[in-house]
Amino acid sequence: MAEVNAALSNPRADIEALDMLERTLFSLNYALDEIGSLGSIIDPPKATAGRSEALAELERARVLALCDPDVGDVLKRLAATPELLSDVRNAQVRVLTRDRDALVRIPAEEQAEFTKLTCEAEEVWRRAKSANDWASFAPYLDRIVAARKSMAASRDPERDPYDVWLDDYEPGCDRAFYDRFFAQVKDCVVPLLADCMASPSKPKHTYMEGDYDVERQWALARDLIDIEGLDTQALWLGRTEHPFTGGPSSGFVIIASHAYENDVLSNVFSILHEGGHALYEQNVDPVYRMTSLKGGTSMGMHEAQSRFFENLVGRSEAFSEPLHAALMKHFPGRLSRVTPRQLYFSENSAEPGLIRTEADELTYPLHILVRYEIEQLLFSGEATAADVPRLWAEKYRAYLGVSVPDDTHGALQDTHWACGDFGYFPTYALGSAYGAQLKAAMVASGVDFDGACARADLAPIRAWLHENVWRWGRAKDPAEIIEAACGEPFSPVYYTDYLTEKFSALYWLEA
Amino acid sequence: MAEVNAALSNPRADIEALDMLERTLFSLNYALDEIGSLGSIIDPPKATAGRSEALAELERARVLALCDPDVGDVLKRLAATPELLSDVRNAQVRVLTRDRDALVRIPAEEQAEFTKLTCEAEEVWRRAKSANDWASFAPYLDRIVAARKSMAASRDPERDPYDVWLDDYEPGCDRAFYDRFFAQVKDCVVPLLADCMASPSKPKHTYMEGDYDVERQWALARDLIDIEGLDTQALWLGRTEHPFTGGPSSGFVIIASHAYENDVLSNVFSILHEGGHALYEQNVDPVYRMTSLKGGTSMGMHEAQSRFFENLVGRSEAFSEPLHAALMKHFPGRLSRVTPRQLYFSENSAEPGLIRTEADELTYPLHILVRYEIEQLLFSGEATAADVPRLWAEKYRAYLGVSVPDDTHGALQDTHWACGDFGYFPTYALGSAYGAQLKAAMVASGVDFDGACARADLAPIRAWLHENVWRWGRAKDPAEIIEAACGEPFSPVYYTDYLTEKFSALYWLEA
Repeated sequence: MAEVNAALSNPRADIEALDMLERTLFSLNYALDEIGSLGSIIDPPKATAGRSEALAELERARVLALCDPDVGDVLKRLAATPELLSDVRNAQVRVLTRDRDALVRIPAEEQAEFTKLTCEAEEVWRRAKSANDWASFAPYLDRIVAARKSMAASRDPERDPYDVWLDDYEPGCDRAFYDRFFAQVKDCVVPLLADCMASPSKPKHTYMEGDYDVERQWALARDLIDIEGLDTQALWLGRTEHPFTGGPSSGFVIIASHAYENDVLSNVFSILHEGGHALYEQNVDPVYRMTSLKGGTSMGMHEAQSRFFENLVGRSEAFSEPLHAALMKHFPGRLSRVTPRQLYFSENSAEPGLIRTEADELTYPLHILVRYEIEQLLFSGEATAADVPRLWAEKYRAYLGVSVPDDTHGALQDTHWACGDFGYFPTYALGSAYGAQLKAAMVASGVDFDGACARADLAPIRAWLHENVWRWGRAKDPAEIIEAACGEPFSPVYYTDYLTEKFSALYWLEA
Repeated sequence: MAEVNAALSNPRADIEALDMLERTLFSLNYALDEIGSLGSIIDPPKATAGRSEALAELERARVLALCDPDVGDVLKRLAATPELLSDVRNAQVRVLTRDRDALVRIPAEEQAEFTKLTCEAEEVWRRAKSANDWASFAPYLDRIVAARKSMAASRDPERDPYDVWLDDYEPGCDRAFYDRFFAQVKDCVVPLLADCMASPSKPKHTYMEGDYDVERQWALARDLIDIEGLDTQALWLGRTEHPFTGGPSSGFVIIASHAYENDVLSNVFSILHEGGHALYEQNVDPVYRMTSLKGGTSMGMHEAQSRFFENLVGRSEAFSEPLHAALMKHFPGRLSRVTPRQLYFSENSAEPGLIRTEADELTYPLHILVRYEIEQLLFSGEATAADVPRLWAEKYRAYLGVSVPDDTHGALQDTHWACGDFGYFPTYALGSAYGAQLKAAMVASGVDFDGACARADLAPIRAWLHENVWRWGRAKDPAEIIEAACGEPFSPVYYTDYLTEKFSALYWLEA
């Protein structure tokens, strides 16, 4: 039999089949990304039905292309002869095999129905959020959880369904991993937050209050995009309710954000955050451009980049000087009596609040913890969508000490569940921890991090991240990237040390 | 053999295969239309390479789906058993068979290369037009003509290649048809234009000259869209150099136009023109929504709708009153001394000029004639791209009496050739003639056309076009639509009568 198979194999034909598959996947992913990303920004209301049908069909075509039995055979044969392939093609075979394995057991129709369901649910969620109407969204949430559990069971009936999705967003991570990770973070953040709240010396956060013209905020956003170092020849900036980044290609990255008249810093940090995602997408090695190796390697590593520029750079004391100058340029009258240090205080006042995307660095992981726990309950069947508003209120009171006034400011605030993204939230907290470890390694390697921030010349920071993270795309797994970049495996201690140091100083805590 | 085939056929499975094909084509056409339409409006410069690759692959997938030999067998079997199918499915089989026949002889790779070539050529054309640089575009034009001839030869080696494309844009039309049509139009327009130019009483066209704020022009555009009766819940308005209409679905129609500070009427009539296309796309029977019957039946019938709203409505004396009111709303100071009748004169001064899209109704078909003749020369090999600027200058001097100062205002003004659209221009003139005949039938059926225009309540006009043209989508061919709507076959006499009557009155010509 082995001889017969060897006789049937034809490496050149297999490589051609691989290249053909990659072109097909590139074009379908391009269409899915552009149509999906722009949908919430520019499409008129009546576009929804046609768009969801089109996305479902394109997704079906993508799954069919990857699940084709011939493709499985080609990938198996190529995986058995790595010596015949370039490093790039070997990486493609590895990533495509993983992508295929994740799909091949889910019936194509089920996947297409799921895409259609979440496309509808996103519209329902949008209206529900604006009308504070949980009841209209709840049936969709239950249907999405049921669909996600059914899909996980098709993939691996032996495994806990939530573990399947945790692993999907971050290869190698499951509940056991995240339980440990969150325990360490909790051990640090809960007492630290308590100390901060009890401190008589708190950084005031009111300096920046007031109204800021929305169009000037967008002009400021364009300046921040330049400072961050994005390639504006490969960028489209849109306006939407919930900020996000999309990228049909490295030459066409879409970032969308919101500007609130009464909160100028919201858009500032959303732009820096989405800009970090966009830098990653734009800077993957061009040789991977039309392959499955394009884009970021995992959700956690993507969030590491976005939160790196939002927090480690954006909310640093060193960066408060150039950020203050950028704000002064667009709002000179309003800010003439605010100093850079007061701006730094405004950005970094740790204040338990309701909205995840507006949270400070210290309370942020607690927002994630609430979602992580509720997702577990929904997947275990201990809760249904009807229970979520109550659970949400209880957990926000317990961990953050705040009362949730309505679902618009509660469980309806994020789009993720409407999109079917369960197991995604935990990667946000993990990304922060990746980022802190990457920053420590960057500084250890000689990069003048604070100097770069103070000069608003982020080129040395970008160069290090480009070399160690961005250029690899999906050719390396996150654990490989961390280990090669930092010289040791992942450890959350850099994150907890960073938070302790920063917030102890801000709140004048005893050492 | 007949018995064997009958035994193999399974009508239910064939219908399922038809529906599956339609869903695949819908999603691919949706992606091609959205990515293609938005490309020139929102994409950043570096998006071009990735977009052209993605479009080429999606086009390849579309052609492969339609050219699949199994699809050919399914269509043949279904065409043989019309009694088993609904009217809609019979129409789908007829249209799909024609679409398939047009493609099946062209190798998929050649089609994909062509899409890529024209996508690149469009970018080159854009830069060439802005830099008045014919030389940079010329090699692309020669390559596109060669590709188009090669494709025509693959489709029908016996037939003149230009005839193949004329028929493609307007089923049933070839050079013989258009030679006769243009001869009749020429016989009317050339002496009529000469009489107008010689008349001592000319409508002055200078009343509207001056500068008009561009943002106010876009606010005016939105009012015109409302007056025209477009469904703004299914519309996206963009800004681009060369106006166009796209439509991923009837619920998502894209119109793009330009506003020039020194020419307020340019955007007015571009919006009315593209709005006519958009009305057609939005108002096809919803039952055809996700089938090949959606959208307009031909280029000529599409242009009939756009030029109907641009000229027969927009440039009518009756409509000058509400159009004047709309202009007054946005530019009150500037227009306080212009009367509706002076506006009507400004819109309808017949003046031989350089730019097709800015041409008046009377000279317009002469612009088309120039392009029709040059396309014939390029296809016959009597000319190459290098000859085009000279030919263009000669023909504009001969037919329109104008000197062409540069290629930006000459052969680089239109995007069509860069897109590979040869044989398309003639449908513009044919569309005007369709429109005049449809208007005559509408009035004969009792619609108070002038009253509707004067009241800016175009509902009766839309209702008649909806009933007789729009709702049919591609389920009827243009000749069928004209005959059913007008009670007689197509005749250009309504068009020449209309032009004669209108311009004789404007120029006080002897009867």
